[in-house]
Amino acid sequence: DPKLKVFTCNANPELAKEIAEHIGVPLGNAQAVRFSDGECQIKLNESVRGCDVFVIQPTSAPVNEHLMELLVMVDALKRASAKSINVVIPYYGYARQDRKARARDPITAKLVANLIETAGAQRVITMDLHATQIQGFFDIPVDHLLGVPILGKHFSEKGLKDIVVVSPDHGGVTRARKLAERLEAPIAIIDKRRPEPNVAEVMNIVGNIEGKTAIIIDDIIDTAGTITLAANALVEAGAREVYACCTHPVLSGPAIERIANSKIKELIVTNSIPLTKEQLIDKITVLSVAPIIGEAIIRVHEELSVSKLFD
Amino acid sequence: DPKLKVFTCNANPELAKEIAEHIGVPLGNAQAVRFSDGECQIKLNESVRGCDVFVIQPTSAPVNEHLMELLVMVDALKRASAKSINVVIPYYGYARQDRKARARDPITAKLVANLIETAGAQRVITMDLHATQIQGFFDIPVDHLLGVPILGKHFSEKGLKDIVVVSPDHGGVTRARKLAERLEAPIAIIDKRRPEPNVAEVMNIVGNIEGKTAIIIDDIIDTAGTITLAANALVEAGAREVYACCTHPVLSGPAIERIANSKIKELIVTNSIPLTKEQLIDKITVLSVAPIIGEAIIRVHEELSVSKLFD
Ligand SMILES: Nc1ncnc2c1ncn2[C@@H]1O[C@H](COP(=O)(O)O)[C@@H](O)[C@H]1O
Ligand SMILES: Nc1ncnc2c1ncn2[C@@H]1O[C@H](COP(=O)(O)O)[C@@H](O)[C@H]1O
Repeated sequence: DPKLKVFTCNANPELAKEIAEHIGVPLGNAQAVRFSDGECQIKLNESVRGCDVFVIQPTSAPVNEHLMELLVMVDALKRASAKSINVVIPYYGYARQDRKARARDPITAKLVANLIETAGAQRVITMDLHATQIQGFFDIPVDHLLGVPILGKHFSEKGLKDIVVVSPDHGGVTRARKLAERLEAPIAIIDKRRPEPNVAEVMNIVGNIEGKTAIIIDDIIDTAGTITLAANALVEAGAREVYACCTHPVLSGPAIERIANSKIKELIVTNSIPLTKEQLIDKITVLSVAPIIGEAIIRVHEELSVSKLFD
Repeated sequence: DPKLKVFTCNANPELAKEIAEHIGVPLGNAQAVRFSDGECQIKLNESVRGCDVFVIQPTSAPVNEHLMELLVMVDALKRASAKSINVVIPYYGYARQDRKARARDPITAKLVANLIETAGAQRVITMDLHATQIQGFFDIPVDHLLGVPILGKHFSEKGLKDIVVVSPDHGGVTRARKLAERLEAPIAIIDKRRPEPNVAEVMNIVGNIEGKTAIIIDDIIDTAGTITLAANALVEAGAREVYACCTHPVLSGPAIERIANSKIKELIVTNSIPLTKEQLIDKITVLSVAPIIGEAIIRVHEELSVSKLFD
């Protein structure tokens, strides 16, 4: 059977190590470094000829550096005769530029899909895409993993009572419903309305949250404006306490300060994006996606091997 | 006739302005900015429907930021129905990764060509590619401009006497010969040899330089190791004075310090890459490539218009 090899660049080497351990293989010997002028240099220090290769690299900030490392790594693997090149992008950067929200907008999420295929990737494993339509931007197989089981397990084990799962906007209702089913809880939705242009948004809560333990769920928390405003609105409307969770902790700009100063009791995130020491404040709990990504890689590798029988 | 429009991102807006002035069109209204998390946002603030669009963007440092800006801009232009998308890349980043120098090297110069085509560019205008083979990495037309006429004119006007043009390595002999022809001067070549591994290189000068005014020419000056060692070797071997010139002043790491401390009397570069204030030391003279790029754009635009007759 072709050998399974796992490589990483610089976006999340800790996660890559955990995934390799879960699978039971050593992390491949390769480095993504920089020439003096800042160009990426990929050093692939071991043979990949005939191997099923998995490259773990979320395209988190600095997104353009991490994306380019991934593309150059895929190019190197392709030219080094890897049997299959599978890219594992736990967090897919540029996912929010998935449609023309304004005239003459680019659709960068589609551009990135094209770039990844052009470099030579043959399969993508990713998690909680901001829009599931992004799967359709690829002409290669996409395995789409969900964070809800991991987040749900954490909340189940906490033994919280009288829960309501809250979607911070209409786009997130499906995700909220999935978590609610796992926790056997009802859902509520925050319905933001701007009564007039340049007038502050009104947070209208649809559903019963009074006296309940609210768990807000989102896919991405970026500047944390949405989620902290939602948390504070829930407390004002009578929620007993507010938890928040997301798969992808982008946490840019004022995010940490906002979370620290908000009514959020605890924020649960995954390690799809690594947090810096400064970002890892007491309120934040990080759950690992290494087991589910590791399992996905094992399954894909088996599939790739089995298919050989039918070649 | 379809309208000609010139846009730029952030790599060299000054050069773009000069080019637009040379052509006699206003610079197009667009901005490349960043979202809070560092993702590129392209704001295309005017219609490009049916236009021949030229985007000026050298892929100089930070190369991955500038490359991504270019790709997203091309994506936006494509989706906004530009008639033709022509990318002007005065300095082509990653050009030195043009072959597998070591086992399992990527060929990033080819990857970048593929990325640019995938984004939707239909023609490339570039200058002094590190390897002319890179033209062949594209399946779209590439107009390849040369810096030698601009550099040669500068030296002619200086009225230097008893010149010898020096190539700092064997790869640069063709370029040195072109400059020598313009200046009606002979050439010399620096033949670096490492007698044994881990023994310092010996600078062996092939050709007569004694008592002469040497002009070293290279395509790129990056860390300036090659060119400053060459200059000092030439002076030691009896050259009267040493000038140096290149098209692309990458000037990374110790470059400026090395140039300042070297025997180089004057370094002539072009504005294919913008210099910071700190880089622009007294010894360095910058010549503009705006006129030749402007002329190339006018010619391409005429060609695109003429071809309509035959459609
Ligand atoms: N990196 C980003 N940070 C913030 N906003 C973004 C980013 N990328 C795209 N957007 C904008 O987010 C909006 C889409 O987000 P959503 O409505 O949540 O799907 C669009 O208006 C995009 O222009
Ligand atoms: N950005 C860069 N800075 C320094 N060296 C590079 C860069 N990109 C590629 N190289 C190396 O430069 C060599 C090719 O340069 P050359 O021999 O001048 O064509 C190869 O060994 C490359 O690995």
